[in-house]
Amino acid sequence: MTRIVALSGGVGGAKLALGLSRVVARHELMVVANTADDFEHLGLHISPDLDTVMYTLSGKSNQEMGWGREGESWAFLESLEEVGGETWFRLGDRDLAIHVERTQHLRAGESLSAVTRHLCDRLGADIDLVPMTDDAVRTIVETAGGDLAFQHYFVRDRCEPEVSGFRFEGIDAATASPGFLEALASDDLEAVVVCPSNPFVSVDPILALAGVREALKQAAAPVVAVSPIVAGLALKGPAAKMMRELDIPATALAVAGHYAARGLVDGFVVDETDRTLAPEVEKLGVQVLVAQTVMESLADRESLAGEVVAFASQIRADR
Amino acid sequence: MTRIVALSGGVGGAKLALGLSRVVARHELMVVANTADDFEHLGLHISPDLDTVMYTLSGKSNQEMGWGREGESWAFLESLEEVGGETWFRLGDRDLAIHVERTQHLRAGESLSAVTRHLCDRLGADIDLVPMTDDAVRTIVETAGGDLAFQHYFVRDRCEPEVSGFRFEGIDAATASPGFLEALASDDLEAVVVCPSNPFVSVDPILALAGVREALKQAAAPVVAVSPIVAGLALKGPAAKMMRELDIPATALAVAGHYAARGLVDGFVVDETDRTLAPEVEKLGVQVLVAQTVMESLADRESLAGEVVAFASQIRADR
Repeated sequence: MTRIVALSGGVGGAKLALGLSRVVARHELMVVANTADDFEHLGLHISPDLDTVMYTLSGKSNQEMGWGREGESWAFLESLEEVGGETWFRLGDRDLAIHVERTQHLRAGESLSAVTRHLCDRLGADIDLVPMTDDAVRTIVETAGGDLAFQHYFVRDRCEPEVSGFRFEGIDAATASPGFLEALASDDLEAVVVCPSNPFVSVDPILALAGVREALKQAAAPVVAVSPIVAGLALKGPAAKMMRELDIPATALAVAGHYAARGLVDGFVVDETDRTLAPEVEKLGVQVLVAQTVMESLADRESLAGEVVAFASQIRADR
Repeated sequence: MTRIVALSGGVGGAKLALGLSRVVARHELMVVANTADDFEHLGLHISPDLDTVMYTLSGKSNQEMGWGREGESWAFLESLEEVGGETWFRLGDRDLAIHVERTQHLRAGESLSAVTRHLCDRLGADIDLVPMTDDAVRTIVETAGGDLAFQHYFVRDRCEPEVSGFRFEGIDAATASPGFLEALASDDLEAVVVCPSNPFVSVDPILALAGVREALKQAAAPVVAVSPIVAGLALKGPAAKMMRELDIPATALAVAGHYAARGLVDGFVVDETDRTLAPEVEKLGVQVLVAQTVMESLADRESLAGEVVAFASQIRADR
């Protein structure tokens, strides 16, 4: 019985998802991960955001690197480099096995949802993690130098090209994954949490799926987003750089506006350092929570998660 | 300019190939490897015999294990096991990169010959190594319990099922690789060496390719085989066990007969411990060299290689 649905990209989203998994019962939380930055590489289907959430929620994420798996080793990649293979995407030996196994299951005709459930079970990520869709959606980053597949932009080119826009190939033909839409329609739902992930390339693909915006608007539960921009900076990733390049102010207010313009959020969480922006966000018709959103410790994750759930509860009560 | 063509399976053949590479100039040696035990596994094209020769000739083979790569690690396999993947075929982290890279090149339309050349160049296996064919040929082991793909018989089932026969799927449609047939037809050729590999599953597939037997008979150079059976035992692998199961005496004499019956060998090398078999082998119309064929040290490999080349030279001179 899902009480909370969290929409997540990679690292930042996974942090809050971990917090949420500790303040509600595990079976009450569904994490829906972006799959528009999935890609085919070396013949393998790689799902970076799904894996980041899965590794984080199973306690297998690499705390030092901030991505990938704990206790990771790199013999495969060293050997691949030796024979002139493509090594720009850093595939660790342990991580690689997940991609090989996923690809095998997909080739055998299983859905990405089913494979994700299998992998989570095996890895001990005791969580209801679902891909946003079982269909292929691929983010294309439009830049001055031409179109780039997302991972080429993000990893190979280190987010250096100047961004002029985004599009999500395959989005029109894609269907939201069955578990996701079902959870949104449930009477038990208490909150939809938009994690502090990149609004353009992590959250927008999820929102762009047919039926998702309508389901969010119809959901009994409020939608609460946590700003990924704090004091004009993205804590992780290129969100702030993208905003500057798109002539959007790199502020939490602009992120709130990005969601509110489409009537998608009921509540918005800004960091304490952005307290002065709260009245401006409220003018968008969105309730505001000011909180400590920078999650360094596990306690930070739990604390923010608890505040976000309480905030949603308050919005529900106010209705 | 190829002076010596060596036909090889895996470990035993690679040992003699290494010896040969040290008694003739590298560019004078071509090693033709069996590819009938190649297989598709985890979506990868794996060529066990090609790789064993390549690792051995580049000094990257694992001396302790007797197969695979030196300095190998197993993080991938551990992780694959964790998620319930197929782990019966022991893919090391470094070895795996070779299969991934090979598969990528093959999918891009390159021939196995071209990929093998590329991998040898990159790994520093300064050798003319060619697959027996660029086409798919797959050994099926016929057993009381039914047909088994070769690696399932060999690795997964540890050669335990009782063998009743073999067949090579795809052999009728396969063409010997271009480099192989060209070398056999060359006037420069001084010897064809059948390495001490399994006659049934390593050498026979090579000999079964269209045109190979004819080319061997027409070649100016003598064909010299080294017995893989010493004192009734196979030094490596299931050859002796297979012979018993096929009601063939597990002797060097029977191996000589296996080749001589088809008029394929001019000379045969038996181990010193099988010295008493020499007159019987000669009755098959085959010249015999008695030598120390058990190759423990590098010096043993060089010594046997030198004797085999001299033996072929003597056969040529006697003609």
